[in-house]
Amino acid sequence: MISSEFVSRRKLVTADLARRRLDLLLVSKLVNIRYLTGFTGSNALLLQSPDGAVLYTDGRYRVQAAEETECTVKVVQGSLIPRVAKSLPRGRLGFEAAHLTFDAYRTLKAHLPSKVAAMPVEGLVEEHRMVKSEAEIETMRRSAALAWNAFEQTLQHVRPGIRELDLAAELDYRMRRLGAESPAFETIVASGVRSALPHASPTAKALGNGEILLIDMGAFLEGYASDMTRTIFLGAARPKAKRLYRAVLEAQRAALEAVREGTAAKSVDRAARRVLRTAGLERAFVHSTGHGLGLEIHESPRVARKVGIQLKAGMAITVEPGVYLQGFGGIRIEDTIVVNRGGCEILTPASKELIEL
Amino acid sequence: MISSEFVSRRKLVTADLARRRLDLLLVSKLVNIRYLTGFTGSNALLLQSPDGAVLYTDGRYRVQAAEETECTVKVVQGSLIPRVAKSLPRGRLGFEAAHLTFDAYRTLKAHLPSKVAAMPVEGLVEEHRMVKSEAEIETMRRSAALAWNAFEQTLQHVRPGIRELDLAAELDYRMRRLGAESPAFETIVASGVRSALPHASPTAKALGNGEILLIDMGAFLEGYASDMTRTIFLGAARPKAKRLYRAVLEAQRAALEAVREGTAAKSVDRAARRVLRTAGLERAFVHSTGHGLGLEIHESPRVARKVGIQLKAGMAITVEPGVYLQGFGGIRIEDTIVVNRGGCEILTPASKELIEL
Repeated sequence: MISSEFVSRRKLVTADLARRRLDLLLVSKLVNIRYLTGFTGSNALLLQSPDGAVLYTDGRYRVQAAEETECTVKVVQGSLIPRVAKSLPRGRLGFEAAHLTFDAYRTLKAHLPSKVAAMPVEGLVEEHRMVKSEAEIETMRRSAALAWNAFEQTLQHVRPGIRELDLAAELDYRMRRLGAESPAFETIVASGVRSALPHASPTAKALGNGEILLIDMGAFLEGYASDMTRTIFLGAARPKAKRLYRAVLEAQRAALEAVREGTAAKSVDRAARRVLRTAGLERAFVHSTGHGLGLEIHESPRVARKVGIQLKAGMAITVEPGVYLQGFGGIRIEDTIVVNRGGCEILTPASKELIEL
Repeated sequence: MISSEFVSRRKLVTADLARRRLDLLLVSKLVNIRYLTGFTGSNALLLQSPDGAVLYTDGRYRVQAAEETECTVKVVQGSLIPRVAKSLPRGRLGFEAAHLTFDAYRTLKAHLPSKVAAMPVEGLVEEHRMVKSEAEIETMRRSAALAWNAFEQTLQHVRPGIRELDLAAELDYRMRRLGAESPAFETIVASGVRSALPHASPTAKALGNGEILLIDMGAFLEGYASDMTRTIFLGAARPKAKRLYRAVLEAQRAALEAVREGTAAKSVDRAARRVLRTAGLERAFVHSTGHGLGLEIHESPRVARKVGIQLKAGMAITVEPGVYLQGFGGIRIEDTIVVNRGGCEILTPASKELIEL
């Protein structure tokens, strides 16, 4: 990311401060600090004011901080919060209420000068992060392409007898060799009845003939996540499994068709849920239809019941209906997409036709 | 872990509640929930009382929770905190103040019946987690052995021209193939001057002849972390680098010799720091000597200045002094160890002799 992009992000945040009648913002959530400065270390606080941004970190990151950000950097020994708190000028200080812990809040309060008021702030930086710039979308495009390349390379080697664990290791290795920093989350490889666990960790179980194989994977590339799920069959799919697959695929298509700028997130969820209800599978769809992603694998907006937020062009979300039948198995189909004015761009164009390996 | 181990952990925690004059404990930190129940899902709350433990989670984890824990499980639609809060009996409810966010605390308060008082609790479950059982130590032994096996396998293929990224991918792949769930943290492969960044992420930089190569890696195996660092030389080490290496190795040995039951954590830190001071390198040692590890890669106790906590037999910590010279490079040597009565057991017995590949 070029440094002017960070400058303009900080300007937008600063403008928000004025609107919220705040003088300063204490950013404690590390991905938000990364978003605003480029700094990727594991210990930092950012103090943003109309006068500029100051990044506080510890001695381990002196060199790295100087390399990664053009902000003023202060290297602190010991806890960051007391040091930042003491240095504050009079005014209203926003803090990230969904991130700061109860303990950290108490420490902050205990060290604030008497003329500083600490005010909880909800999702300020996160709101800006929801809508991606063209540079961010391009990175996510590459992240998604990388994940499905790794998926397609690995698919050629899938056969009964391979353990879930080894298949997950292979997928992760290929993502890394293709340039990913890491998987975006613990890669799910769930076979047979284990596919009925929506968030199964891979085990030493070997893939069996005739089984369902559910793979949910994504990459972090230059900080940005991708996320995709494909469900395939080892050998001929049973008629019941085929029926479930078609229903989920139809639900996913209906949800994708519902996506466009101006649509409420809950309408996308409803579109998927309606198809599965018609198929008698609504109760087997035990999670929401999707979630935002970017610098985090789960971020706003959620694509779920009751989420009234309107989709905007540039929002990146997943669309991933699934059905899970305990003792039988599960089917999920997921793409990462970017909302645009007329619809969406699918970033994970791996085939969704029913595959019988 | 056998289920009786979870039962006895919960008994110890319940006994602590009485000592702290609490009637109930709301456990929100997921590794603490795992420690007390075996549940490994990503969304849960545990309510522990003298009458037993109730695990709250969402529909995605219905099957998994039933498989993983013998606790009572309640599957909740929507946010967990309001649901748990409403169901509480009169009394004093402890919550994890270092984990619960300010927002979650407010939600909890807003939904508590009027006869329930919410009391911040510091590190209750974490205190029990510090001292590992023999079963936990055995898992950590295998986690550490796995990491250094992967290290030694990979070392044979290290040569100038390989990119840091690819070496990190190789290390991670080998850990996975040896049975790890994942790396315990982002594997650090830092070569040349980049080794002066204590927490460098691997880059596309190729290893150069005559360079320092710092590798910091560990595995999660059955939930338990290991952590080791070795610094090696690609070709003949320069005299200055050799001198730094010997100083760090001597500091690490001094710290290891200081470890035994009853010693204060800060004394171990001081032992390492004293050696580096004598070598004129104290200011180049920019972090603390070590940290506890177990279900988390960083947990209590810290092994640092001012940490007066006494080491107990069964505590697992790292011992990892390092020196970092900007523009030249860095050296760090790290083992995972378990404290015992007369000293410690080193779980990462990879050679620490100076290696020139």
